[in-house]
Amino acid sequence: MTVPEMTPALHPNLHPKWAGSRCTFGIVGLGVMGGSFAARLRQLGYTVYGMDLDADTLQYAQDHGIIDEGSQDPAMLLPQCDVVIFCLYPTKIEPWLRDHQHHLNPGTLVLEISGVKTGITGPLQDLMRPDCELLSIHPMCGRESQGIRYSDPKIFDGANFLIIPTDRNTHESVRFVQGLARELGCGTISELDPESHDRMIGFLSQLTHVIAVSLMNTHENSHLVQYTGDSFRDLTRIARINENMWPELFLLNREILLDETDQFLAAVQQFRDMLANGDRQGMKEAMIESTKRREKFG
Amino acid sequence: MTVPEMTPALHPNLHPKWAGSRCTFGIVGLGVMGGSFAARLRQLGYTVYGMDLDADTLQYAQDHGIIDEGSQDPAMLLPQCDVVIFCLYPTKIEPWLRDHQHHLNPGTLVLEISGVKTGITGPLQDLMRPDCELLSIHPMCGRESQGIRYSDPKIFDGANFLIIPTDRNTHESVRFVQGLARELGCGTISELDPESHDRMIGFLSQLTHVIAVSLMNTHENSHLVQYTGDSFRDLTRIARINENMWPELFLLNREILLDETDQFLAAVQQFRDMLANGDRQGMKEAMIESTKRREKFG
Repeated sequence: MTVPEMTPALHPNLHPKWAGSRCTFGIVGLGVMGGSFAARLRQLGYTVYGMDLDADTLQYAQDHGIIDEGSQDPAMLLPQCDVVIFCLYPTKIEPWLRDHQHHLNPGTLVLEISGVKTGITGPLQDLMRPDCELLSIHPMCGRESQGIRYSDPKIFDGANFLIIPTDRNTHESVRFVQGLARELGCGTISELDPESHDRMIGFLSQLTHVIAVSLMNTHENSHLVQYTGDSFRDLTRIARINENMWPELFLLNREILLDETDQFLAAVQQFRDMLANGDRQGMKEAMIESTKRREKFG
Repeated sequence: MTVPEMTPALHPNLHPKWAGSRCTFGIVGLGVMGGSFAARLRQLGYTVYGMDLDADTLQYAQDHGIIDEGSQDPAMLLPQCDVVIFCLYPTKIEPWLRDHQHHLNPGTLVLEISGVKTGITGPLQDLMRPDCELLSIHPMCGRESQGIRYSDPKIFDGANFLIIPTDRNTHESVRFVQGLARELGCGTISELDPESHDRMIGFLSQLTHVIAVSLMNTHENSHLVQYTGDSFRDLTRIARINENMWPELFLLNREILLDETDQFLAAVQQFRDMLANGDRQGMKEAMIESTKRREKFG
């Protein structure tokens, strides 16, 4: 479902800690996403603290005005934050929270941006201090390259933004994040439950990456570079992929992704058999169907 | 192999009929490709005659300055042409040539632009009048939509242009077409034998279309439109496809396309099995390989 358009300004009376320009953000993990969040939030006038294990990353973020202040030690900054955004690899969040959440300000809103939710959101909410709230979000944007040097506040412009609330989240936090997403510059803002989110991501994002990687690896092809046109480039653009993050995301969504992959394999096999049997009419009908379906996706 | 850069002007002394601006072109079939050829050639100052079965198409072409003159009757125009470019569906060329080639000027250069060559070029050269020459070319550009209304001279700008000569072609015609391709605005101009061409097309173009159509048809997905990002859009752009032409091209290249499809299916299956087995390291290595390979394709 699409969330109706809301006022771009944050509602001033929702929660004293998150309201208006007084709100202070902490970003945990200054990679592409963390750096982009920080840069855009600072552009919007917020105070942004950055936490990262890597001293060079913190130095770079500070030198380039991406954060107001940074530290390798969360104890130094967490108590000053009203909203904390986790931009870590999904499996790194739980240990981090376990080690450091006692430094959180009471009432802190904790957001996490993992690419899958079913195995992430619930366990983190189980672990979360009862006087804080953890809400899962998924801004559908990024970069194929890794690290803060590739962060860019513009990645939010027009991007789809998903909010994945559970029955342990409050209307206030969802409304706050809707306003925040709009301030960030995102386009369509939607709410999904964790299972629907992971099913959608399994098909639209994970399966497409499996296909691109597999097509690129089908056989040796470097001698074909000079003949390549848009079709092959389009289908393999995402074969340049972060090999540390994606296997983790795939394994976290294994059953769904296996099912989507099997359905795709069956569709290719079916087309292959029509070709083998000289079934011109069958191929034609498949193309009429794919053309009709694709038109909806603009 | 890449053909070395040649002078953009046509060589004036190669053949009296094809030389310089005196050369007159006949385009057979005014669809997207035929219309685009005609429009670009007229922009370049050539005289262009158009032949098509459809009176409305001819009228549109004339009204929009795409051709100098058009006719449904090839007998009216063929005798005035020095170079004839077939822009028909591949299987339509042979009967057309059989019916009308007695109207060709002696010495006419006949070009054909089919997307596959092995089963096309040889039979057409067998059929060709001995005082004319048939040369296969493949400008790698087009439009997803059909008909002269979608023709556009700009499709040639920077496009790869392939020349597929056999031992029955002359150096003069190949050099003429190299100059012509450069005048049209094409980028890299290459020569390939028919088998290498069809193998390359089978992988880079036909397999990618099989994948896009199959992904689009994997299962009902219209409810996902609002969540779609660039990955899915990139992989399915070519799922909007001309359902009349592509099955014909696939069947003309059946053995190669079946082989490429089977290799791709095996690559996806291999990745699927790594995912099923929780083989994180295997998936990681596949992604490192695909990233490395993709970098070469720019």
